[in-house]
Amino acid sequence: MVIIVLNLIDIFVEMKGNSFGSIFRITTFGESHGKALGVIIDGCPAGLEIDENFINHELARRRPGQSAIVTQRKEPDQVQILSGVFNNVSIGTPISLLIENKNQKSKDYSHISEKFRPSHADYTYQEKYGLRDYRGGGRSSARETVARVAAGAIAKLLLKQIGIEITAYVCQVGHLTWEGELSLDNIKEIEKNPVRCPDPNLAVEMETLIKEIKKQGDTVGGVIKCTINNVPVGLGEPVFDKLHADLGKAMLSINACKGFEYGSGFEGTKMRGSEHNDQFTIKEGSVSTGTNHSGGIQGGISNGMPINFKVAFKPVATIMRDQESIDEQHQKTIVSGKGRHDPCVVPRAVPIVEAMAALVLADHYFRNKTSKI
Amino acid sequence: MVIIVLNLIDIFVEMKGNSFGSIFRITTFGESHGKALGVIIDGCPAGLEIDENFINHELARRRPGQSAIVTQRKEPDQVQILSGVFNNVSIGTPISLLIENKNQKSKDYSHISEKFRPSHADYTYQEKYGLRDYRGGGRSSARETVARVAAGAIAKLLLKQIGIEITAYVCQVGHLTWEGELSLDNIKEIEKNPVRCPDPNLAVEMETLIKEIKKQGDTVGGVIKCTINNVPVGLGEPVFDKLHADLGKAMLSINACKGFEYGSGFEGTKMRGSEHNDQFTIKEGSVSTGTNHSGGIQGGISNGMPINFKVAFKPVATIMRDQESIDEQHQKTIVSGKGRHDPCVVPRAVPIVEAMAALVLADHYFRNKTSKI
Amino acid sequence: MVIIVLNLIDIFVEMKGNSFGSIFRITTFGESHGKALGVIIDGCPAGLEIDENFINHELARRRPGQSAIVTQRKEPDQVQILSGVFNNVSIGTPISLLIENKNQKSKDYSHISEKFRPSHADYTYQEKYGLRDYRGGGRSSARETVARVAAGAIAKLLLKQIGIEITAYVCQVGHLTWEGELSLDNIKEIEKNPVRCPDPNLAVEMETLIKEIKKQGDTVGGVIKCTINNVPVGLGEPVFDKLHADLGKAMLSINACKGFEYGSGFEGTKMRGSEHNDQFTIKEGSVSTGTNHSGGIQGGISNGMPINFKVAFKPVATIMRDQESIDEQHQKTIVSGKGRHDPCVVPRAVPIVEAMAALVLADHYFRNKTSKI
Amino acid sequence: MVIIVLNLIDIFVEMKGNSFGSIFRITTFGESHGKALGVIIDGCPAGLEIDENFINHELARRRPGQSAIVTQRKEPDQVQILSGVFNNVSIGTPISLLIENKNQKSKDYSHISEKFRPSHADYTYQEKYGLRDYRGGGRSSARETVARVAAGAIAKLLLKQIGIEITAYVCQVGHLTWEGELSLDNIKEIEKNPVRCPDPNLAVEMETLIKEIKKQGDTVGGVIKCTINNVPVGLGEPVFDKLHADLGKAMLSINACKGFEYGSGFEGTKMRGSEHNDQFTIKEGSVSTGTNHSGGIQGGISNGMPINFKVAFKPVATIMRDQESIDEQHQKTIVSGKGRHDPCVVPRAVPIVEAMAALVLADHYFRNKTSKI
Repeated sequence: MVIIVLNLIDIFVEMKGNSFGSIFRITTFGESHGKALGVIIDGCPAGLEIDENFINHELARRRPGQSAIVTQRKEPDQVQILSGVFNNVSIGTPISLLIENKNQKSKDYSHISEKFRPSHADYTYQEKYGLRDYRGGGRSSARETVARVAAGAIAKLLLKQIGIEITAYVCQVGHLTWEGELSLDNIKEIEKNPVRCPDPNLAVEMETLIKEIKKQGDTVGGVIKCTINNVPVGLGEPVFDKLHADLGKAMLSINACKGFEYGSGFEGTKMRGSEHNDQFTIKEGSVSTGTNHSGGIQGGISNGMPINFKVAFKPVATIMRDQESIDEQHQKTIVSGKGRHDPCVVPRAVPIVEAMAALVLADHYFRNKTSKI
Repeated sequence: MVIIVLNLIDIFVEMKGNSFGSIFRITTFGESHGKALGVIIDGCPAGLEIDENFINHELARRRPGQSAIVTQRKEPDQVQILSGVFNNVSIGTPISLLIENKNQKSKDYSHISEKFRPSHADYTYQEKYGLRDYRGGGRSSARETVARVAAGAIAKLLLKQIGIEITAYVCQVGHLTWEGELSLDNIKEIEKNPVRCPDPNLAVEMETLIKEIKKQGDTVGGVIKCTINNVPVGLGEPVFDKLHADLGKAMLSINACKGFEYGSGFEGTKMRGSEHNDQFTIKEGSVSTGTNHSGGIQGGISNGMPINFKVAFKPVATIMRDQESIDEQHQKTIVSGKGRHDPCVVPRAVPIVEAMAALVLADHYFRNKTSKI
Repeated sequence: MVIIVLNLIDIFVEMKGNSFGSIFRITTFGESHGKALGVIIDGCPAGLEIDENFINHELARRRPGQSAIVTQRKEPDQVQILSGVFNNVSIGTPISLLIENKNQKSKDYSHISEKFRPSHADYTYQEKYGLRDYRGGGRSSARETVARVAAGAIAKLLLKQIGIEITAYVCQVGHLTWEGELSLDNIKEIEKNPVRCPDPNLAVEMETLIKEIKKQGDTVGGVIKCTINNVPVGLGEPVFDKLHADLGKAMLSINACKGFEYGSGFEGTKMRGSEHNDQFTIKEGSVSTGTNHSGGIQGGISNGMPINFKVAFKPVATIMRDQESIDEQHQKTIVSGKGRHDPCVVPRAVPIVEAMAALVLADHYFRNKTSKI
Repeated sequence: MVIIVLNLIDIFVEMKGNSFGSIFRITTFGESHGKALGVIIDGCPAGLEIDENFINHELARRRPGQSAIVTQRKEPDQVQILSGVFNNVSIGTPISLLIENKNQKSKDYSHISEKFRPSHADYTYQEKYGLRDYRGGGRSSARETVARVAAGAIAKLLLKQIGIEITAYVCQVGHLTWEGELSLDNIKEIEKNPVRCPDPNLAVEMETLIKEIKKQGDTVGGVIKCTINNVPVGLGEPVFDKLHADLGKAMLSINACKGFEYGSGFEGTKMRGSEHNDQFTIKEGSVSTGTNHSGGIQGGISNGMPINFKVAFKPVATIMRDQESIDEQHQKTIVSGKGRHDPCVVPRAVPIVEAMAALVLADHYFRNKTSKI
């Protein structure tokens, strides 16, 4: 037998968790200031028409520079389809989507190459991996979500064929909250204002608030609500992969997300069972429930009622102010704000929430299909 | 070639999602009124002392009949270790834990064998699988969590060796809320009262409330808070398997859970970045942050500060009242309450929350180890 | 931040790889001389009739003591179904099967508690885990396959509904080889003789050979061939999970297996492409190929022709002779043969090969179903 | 409840199985005549120096046109690293490697756009997916292995740090077989001749044979042997993920592979246990076995002795002759040979076998690390 001497000095740590989904499964890659970001979709069925324009349309909804209240970085974000599509139709093989990085200003980040920005991932990445790509946060940057939106666009194309519709919108910015319900009227307003709030008047207030906060070099948090209609009964796997558990994980995996609740959520904990229970009834010949405190999911499985949930986003950590911090040698230092950043993340996070919801639904649609003998 | 004619009449649907974790991985099985419930732990390292008494101690904390405010079913819930342990030490092979069902009163459920209880999983299971074990909810029963607590006990034994400590407690029952912080004093109170609230006075109020609501044949929801101390820096995988995303999924997979937030949570969305950011400092020679709005996790990776999160539980769906519903033929019917059930789930859910947290931490501890070359 | 001091003395190593399959997925547990062996099947569809007698019938085919040429240990091996079945029908939840160990003679193994038997897993387990359950090989014992056969029986019940038929048999014992092809006549002979060879005359020769070798305290290897008929076109996933790659892994995971080949196998490497290619034709209205060097699989996907493959098994490592070896202190020692062991593994391995083939086919049947939108 | 009408006409089937490995995990994408092929490596530890030249060197060993006995297609096959590497060092995030397709002559394939080539994957893909990219076999082309070799190069860089060395070579072409053992001398010959046979004289004979067969428009099969030295004791997971089972699956997943055997293989089935057992001894202070019929693996776990295995490759299916076949309408037709193809696959398959072996070893190296508490 040969004796092996392992004599490695440095701490080498690896990273995983770059895949999501079990049957309709994506793996993303890329750093904020690397050559490109991208995603492989493994598990898209053959025969789906792949509309490249729709993917670019979704990317445009997420894109920086789309309005005065988001970061003014200019990233064209056009998708390239490298594989899995032949004559505009999916062929069952992995679909690889690439988005090149065009507007990186890496120099913007030299001032933090050895400092840890407060409430960013700089410190934890450095400790976990022993080194990091400090430029724009590297892999921890929200730029990674461009790959999710591209993959989510294909999931949406798939769900369209089944009839499932996903709509997310901003229901809160700072202290400004919209308590209304989506209707055929106000749903049209969402994409008409830069905040993506269904109430056009409140949207103006929110926009003003964001601009004021931006002027102060500060940031603010917010909440996004998402509604999913026409979901077939039966999606979701009991026990660990309950539909809402997978939706929750999907949302919590988005940068800056701090909380997730569905149906009656945290407020529902104050209710009595007799109020909270959704009693069954027959409505227009179909099974329905009068109330929908269950948020469309019972026992982890969709019950055919609209699915709805809320996602909390913290204020963006990058502020245009001096902050106390430490450097790589754990010495005290000052980090000052620089660069082009979002004062509030929720307007651009709306398509990301939709994309992640679409990926969960597409996956569970197929999981539920692995089924009939 | 042989032609295959598939001529299957019934809708057969399968179910998965009974496993949790990627390296320290559990798979649970069993129905509420079947022969037994159990769990296989695959990925427990060899050499860990397995203290059977500790597993039974944890099961006792979850057990029905432990106080006047929980269900009075009598389930002894003693664990049997079938494999993976030799001379009280783990040997690296799968550890199989079995808990027999002893006190099933299946007859209690004959009245709902063809009816769907509101806000239960009866309807969704029936639609998904085409049939169901209606006795006590079958697999959808919270009895399934007995397997999680047993596996979680072994995860806790493992984490003890690393120094990680997990403490959950009830911070809200209905409208009664405890806003305090855990201290060396009040932490001892948690297990002294049947509600598991760190404030003994509020615990009495909560107990009284639960008893009143029980008398009314009704139920009430609540919130559990969990704190995890001594977590090494570096646990959690970026992008999809962020530490808080996996904790969120773990909690949302517990029966009756409606929401999850960590650190500043939903309230934090109203803050400005300048308030919310946790500025770094050096405290007693170690990296620390003054505030902990990040809840011990930055960029999805533990930063060494205490991890804390809240879990929302809805009021139990089984109430001792008549409710409108439908039957399997989708005809209107009345479901009346019967059996022995919890008026409020949170006291017994405390050890379940801890167990799921322990499973997530144990798994990410090993994931972070798959690392040095 | 809290400093964590890890101060663990022993080398603790964990073990995984106890699961097989991706949708129809099994996880086995149990040691040779522990309380029980078992398996959880996660992914069996609801609505399948579970015939407990058939499971026991398959276990009987694998059972020790079934004839004079196999080990004379007496293990009744009756299955207990703990979950997932209600009124003899699968309900879509995990099916847990238990087989208790009844006839362990642990004392038989005290002589090897600190010695490594040649060509067994004693040494590698000890090095990998730092400790081992030495009784009967613990988890490395071929007794583990009892769980595979139980799970395979349920896979077979599933495949029966689709029409797929799996037949394995012994085609070689030592130098004795059967070159014939299965026919409607000789297929009936397989289970009539203890060797499980389709040629009754050769079976007698093989039986005589095995008995002679047994008398000498020695063992001998052999080859099993397996044929699968009525496989639908389209099973198997391209690239890494080709149908034959998954069959190969399944077979190679069986104790004592040393090789796998399908279709033309190793001999086919000597052929020219012009001989080897299976030209397409239409036979009785269906697509067929004249020859079947492809073994029913092209590009990793079933083509509707019979699938066939061969599995090589080495001579059993336990012989009734003194052998040189080393002990745990790496000192030279003598290991002498004891206990009740098989002189040749192939007769009892026939149902194991079938079980593993059934598990692969059932899994790929469902994988191919995760497909239509 | 909303009624969903699913009204989809076509058969849509999806495909997976494009990932390999559990911790050091790759996902490949790309079709033979698409824009590019590529691979994402998720699970490469941070801190590994990534030598781009070495990746290109490995690609050159696999490249078409490298000698007179391989296909004369001209594919430059230079790798582009899109992510996961910063300043030439891995940073723990997914490494994405891209190889553009430069020399596709898609027109070469128009003659088979509606015909099925015998013993290719045309028919099975068409049946499975309902459509296919017929150009060069699309995803079923052995061109997919370029991504494996690129990823395998990084696995090799990792294994170099541990000391593990992998050497594959051609030991058989048609009827010409080399029975020798690798030595310090003949190992240097392998890369000196176009066949990659360690015996230079036999290499000339093999080369002549291949050229003759090529002239006849025919093809021939062969066998590759692989030896892995300096493997630490303890790699491999018992039961289903035995080291040789994963090696077997890896090899069987390579295009044209028909069989796998390790150690004594199929020949060993004819031996007696008393001959076959590898008795332990101490050699130069280390544990060793006199013989190595176990092929370096006992109980599925590496024992420190050299690992060796053989891989059988069938004759290439594309021949320059007319063959009977059918078309998409299942009508009889003639397929004639065209294009630039390999007369024998084994010379170019040597680096592919090594790459797959490296991926298996790297993965099991980390799996074995998920271990110490």
